[in-house]
Amino acid sequence: MKKNLFRITLGALALAVTAGAQAQVTAEDMVKFRQSGYTFMNWNMGKIKAMAVDGAQPYNQEQIVAAANVIAAIANSGMGALYSPDTLNATGWKPTRLKANFFEEPEKVREVAVNFIQQANKMQEVAVNGDQQAVAAQFNQLVESCRGCHQNFRGD
Amino acid sequence: MKKNLFRITLGALALAVTAGAQAQVTAEDMVKFRQSGYTFMNWNMGKIKAMAVDGAQPYNQEQIVAAANVIAAIANSGMGALYSPDTLNATGWKPTRLKANFFEEPEKVREVAVNFIQQANKMQEVAVNGDQQAVAAQFNQLVESCRGCHQNFRGD
Repeated sequence: MKKNLFRITLGALALAVTAGAQAQVTAEDMVKFRQSGYTFMNWNMGKIKAMAVDGAQPYNQEQIVAAANVIAAIANSGMGALYSPDTLNATGWKPTRLKANFFEEPEKVREVAVNFIQQANKMQEVAVNGDQQAVAAQFNQLVESCRGCHQNFRGD
Repeated sequence: MKKNLFRITLGALALAVTAGAQAQVTAEDMVKFRQSGYTFMNWNMGKIKAMAVDGAQPYNQEQIVAAANVIAAIANSGMGALYSPDTLNATGWKPTRLKANFFEEPEKVREVAVNFIQQANKMQEVAVNGDQQAVAAQFNQLVESCRGCHQNFRGD
């Protein structure tokens, strides 16, 4: 966990460094990679919701674990490196919704990013060890942690 | 591992069933989720390549493990459920390149899918336990397993 916190701090704050370290990735590709990560998480969030929260699909622990593994792996993948200032008006699969204050509030960015990673890691643990009720409860915590970024740094 | 093989068989072969089980996901969204998963894997493949194969970036085991975790988690996420026949001409982020023979050669689909999952799981193990040379070697095996699908079932 300590290592995760360290990495996300690097990712979110040392943007100039990380952007330089992968200079071959264009701003458009950075946005495309971001949108792909969030969209693929969205599919897996939807599966957990359908099985554990809504009951729209039968509860299947193996599939819950697989979905939680995806979310945790993406959360821990160092996506901070995909946030360079020149991505602010870039178009990946579609125009980015990132707001400019993302680069003006590094402490707040770090706070929401660390919370998201912690909740994603917890989701992974609960998927393995918890029952449907615990999975549903942690799913709601995880959704809250997503909102931390959406409400502060994502436009409409 | 056995469970993975079982799931991919279900995912690849019992398409009618899986498509029915998530009737709320449109063909367009299925393609979008597929393209997102492959694109996000591509970013992580690129990081492993840059660090372990090309030497374009310093070797960083923690980042190699994080990237391998993403690839393995996506490979094991049950993407077979995103392949229903009505996605053949669908557009997600862009028009799908899936070829119609995907639905005519289920044994071949199963073979390439199982091989890909096995190589992705091996990549995850080698990232944790292997050195740079072993990671580079397994990266090449993994790329080969990706080609199994690209060469058989993906158009230009």
